[in-house]
Amino acid sequence: MEADLLLIPIDRAGPVPVLRQVYLGLRRAILSGDIPAGGRLPPTRALAARLGIARNSVVAAYEQLLAEGFIEGRVGAGSFVSRDLPEPLDLPPPLMAPAAPPPPPVVPHAGQYGAAPFNTGRCTLDDRTLQVWRSLTARRLARPDPALLGYADPSGSAALRGAVARYLRAARAVRCEPEQVVVTAGAQQAIDLVLRVLLRPGDAAWFEDPGYPAVRAALAAAGARIVPVPVDAQGMDVSAGIAAAPEARLAYVTPSSQYPLGVVLSMARRMELLAWAHRAGAWLLEDDYDSEFRYAGRPLASLQGIDAAGRVIYVGTFSKVLFPGLRLGYAVLPPALLEGVRSTRLLSDWHPAALQEGVVTDFIEEGHFAQHLRRMRQHYRGARDALVAALREHLPEMLEVEVPDQGMKLLARLRPGLTDQAVAEAAARRGVIARPVSPMFLAAPPIQALMLGFSGHEPGRMRWAARELARALA
Amino acid sequence: MEADLLLIPIDRAGPVPVLRQVYLGLRRAILSGDIPAGGRLPPTRALAARLGIARNSVVAAYEQLLAEGFIEGRVGAGSFVSRDLPEPLDLPPPLMAPAAPPPPPVVPHAGQYGAAPFNTGRCTLDDRTLQVWRSLTARRLARPDPALLGYADPSGSAALRGAVARYLRAARAVRCEPEQVVVTAGAQQAIDLVLRVLLRPGDAAWFEDPGYPAVRAALAAAGARIVPVPVDAQGMDVSAGIAAAPEARLAYVTPSSQYPLGVVLSMARRMELLAWAHRAGAWLLEDDYDSEFRYAGRPLASLQGIDAAGRVIYVGTFSKVLFPGLRLGYAVLPPALLEGVRSTRLLSDWHPAALQEGVVTDFIEEGHFAQHLRRMRQHYRGARDALVAALREHLPEMLEVEVPDQGMKLLARLRPGLTDQAVAEAAARRGVIARPVSPMFLAAPPIQALMLGFSGHEPGRMRWAARELARALA
Repeated sequence: MEADLLLIPIDRAGPVPVLRQVYLGLRRAILSGDIPAGGRLPPTRALAARLGIARNSVVAAYEQLLAEGFIEGRVGAGSFVSRDLPEPLDLPPPLMAPAAPPPPPVVPHAGQYGAAPFNTGRCTLDDRTLQVWRSLTARRLARPDPALLGYADPSGSAALRGAVARYLRAARAVRCEPEQVVVTAGAQQAIDLVLRVLLRPGDAAWFEDPGYPAVRAALAAAGARIVPVPVDAQGMDVSAGIAAAPEARLAYVTPSSQYPLGVVLSMARRMELLAWAHRAGAWLLEDDYDSEFRYAGRPLASLQGIDAAGRVIYVGTFSKVLFPGLRLGYAVLPPALLEGVRSTRLLSDWHPAALQEGVVTDFIEEGHFAQHLRRMRQHYRGARDALVAALREHLPEMLEVEVPDQGMKLLARLRPGLTDQAVAEAAARRGVIARPVSPMFLAAPPIQALMLGFSGHEPGRMRWAARELARALA
Repeated sequence: MEADLLLIPIDRAGPVPVLRQVYLGLRRAILSGDIPAGGRLPPTRALAARLGIARNSVVAAYEQLLAEGFIEGRVGAGSFVSRDLPEPLDLPPPLMAPAAPPPPPVVPHAGQYGAAPFNTGRCTLDDRTLQVWRSLTARRLARPDPALLGYADPSGSAALRGAVARYLRAARAVRCEPEQVVVTAGAQQAIDLVLRVLLRPGDAAWFEDPGYPAVRAALAAAGARIVPVPVDAQGMDVSAGIAAAPEARLAYVTPSSQYPLGVVLSMARRMELLAWAHRAGAWLLEDDYDSEFRYAGRPLASLQGIDAAGRVIYVGTFSKVLFPGLRLGYAVLPPALLEGVRSTRLLSDWHPAALQEGVVTDFIEEGHFAQHLRRMRQHYRGARDALVAALREHLPEMLEVEVPDQGMKLLARLRPGLTDQAVAEAAARRGVIARPVSPMFLAAPPIQALMLGFSGHEPGRMRWAARELARALA
């Protein structure tokens, strides 16, 4: 242990002698394992200098520890923590005293972070992408951007904002200038920032029923009055929303692929929604979380791109097209909201991580992104087909599988009589992650279904998991 | 342009023919520069497949663009955007219409992000650290952690939490277990999360006067009633706080080095503050932003380490000891607050960036961190002395310089008659950043002083900037 890394609080004004404070501090460090058995203590001179006290206080404390068997002195080699420690007699009470029961978690954690099938949100990086990623990272670190070494723009780097704007204009028909883009730590941060700027406690907000739990939690945290709006085969039922809360401040909507049902918001509904927002002065928060991987049918443009009145806030993420551990996403904002979101981002966590921004910029601008998307689209389509085949083989009677045209997960409705939460628990006991859909419903009558992710899982693992799921259901 | 990367919204139900929609979409992409001059258009067959429409609609649209001079066809080579574009006649109105004036920024942005002296918060990474950083990053990317590819624990990785807990116990006398650590995107996020969990609109919060503007903004965003508590030579005046708001829910405090004045909270005041928090059931938010680099005198332990009642939330950052672009910091939480902060972190941005977490873990655990701290301490002490010398040479009459015992910035009081905001503006016109201190005061009578950073600036640049500052004052 370096003297520099050890600090013992010394209170000269208090009743405890300095020698005793050094002794107690070292003993605590030894008993807690901060200085491990066999570890070397700092030289007395260095520790005395570090603590700003007389060396003889340190020497006396070491002697007491030596006498009690906490440390061993080796001539010419210094002092070391004993391998056989004595039992302490007068330890202070532990800090981790029984606390008040914690509040219930806003979002379920269990099973959320595993790599097991069929967890959602898992990604694949193939060898080619990994190789490119390594070389772009090494190049960025060879000559680090001075921006790394200081605080930066809360909107993110101008280069990445430009790359995102060009990509969204071309691929998603989003109408935007780079100045409207704010680079965030994923779509979730983009949404949370927008809600913090727009909502005052008690403001009504339309929320799809069923809907995405993490955004529901963010709405609740912002103090919103959540207005559940039912979803049918055309997506969010806009007239129901208008009937329930015509004065709502905001509507959260997933037009390209409704979460969790996967339906697409029809063109008629889109026009109805835009007209309402324009009339009511409401904001539409478009979460385009999952539209990059499309396997069949016509692609769907963004809602933002057909909005002539500037009421749509567009949110997207690199967590799906690249990987969640990257923590990069973006919002495209109507100009009137830009300054508020920038300020809130600053007080929330200042700005994005600079190195990753640079690597992603190069990845897009040098053409790797388009190639990665194309390869992954093929790869994930294969994974989707493998999952569908495995479910049809092992659970033909139990599940009604909806084969999605896009995205990284599918919805499997359970045979009548089964409840999704019970099935999910039974699956979890066998190491299989199957997310129940019924808890995502608010006022609408819930369906019993599982959300199963196929991205980032090997076909063999998915077959194994389908068999286990069948056993869990038996 | 790849067909995959181009999306034109097609509305089959609307009044505009599909052919016309393709024509308008392509023309917009050309005029906006999304397909640059000379750029190649996708083959008609690929674009028709991508858009899910008949190929002859695409062919007809291309022919119209060709006839109007927007594109050029080269036999056997495809279609390219013309280098001489015609003037468009019927463009839709731009989205960037004059908007309502934005709200005033919560925190001043100007000059915040420059590399010029004397901006604060700039860091140095020497060749040795950079070399280690490159090799640790390459090693982590050689065999990527599966955690990269999915969503992860909102508290951060167990490995980094353990490393942080061990470091803080030894170096800052913080009493904590790894389970109490939440890894955040810098100290600012740690503070913002804690405020979101603890404060309800209207709750009183003590805030040092003068105090740190970004936290003042976060308190305001959380709806707190900010109670300014004056600061004297012993730090925050606790009795004044008790007199003003004995029932406050929280006190934000910078005990190791008061921001911006640099004074240390005395032991008597620490005991008084802890006793009040215990009695009132209030929380103490300790921001230990700047205590790693100490040049003289005894080191100061954390307030958290002497708190027997578990009322202190300890916050720190890697932005100063490593670099701000990293965006990593941490909070050490009393157990009762852990679940609330984890949930709020999840809805705020899920979890930290996985690669950087891994690199920092290795950097600490393999001993590079301790070496980096030691080298940087020497380096920054030299930078401090260089700045003090330059100011004494060029501005002996104008500034009263306080030489700090720790940290990365100093406070220079202005000669009576000068105002810090006017001086800062004059300096900015000469490319020198000098942060005025008077705007950081709330109710207390402001001093006229500049906050000058010496970290991350070369001595030669600081001498130049001192000369320019002298000219700005003349």
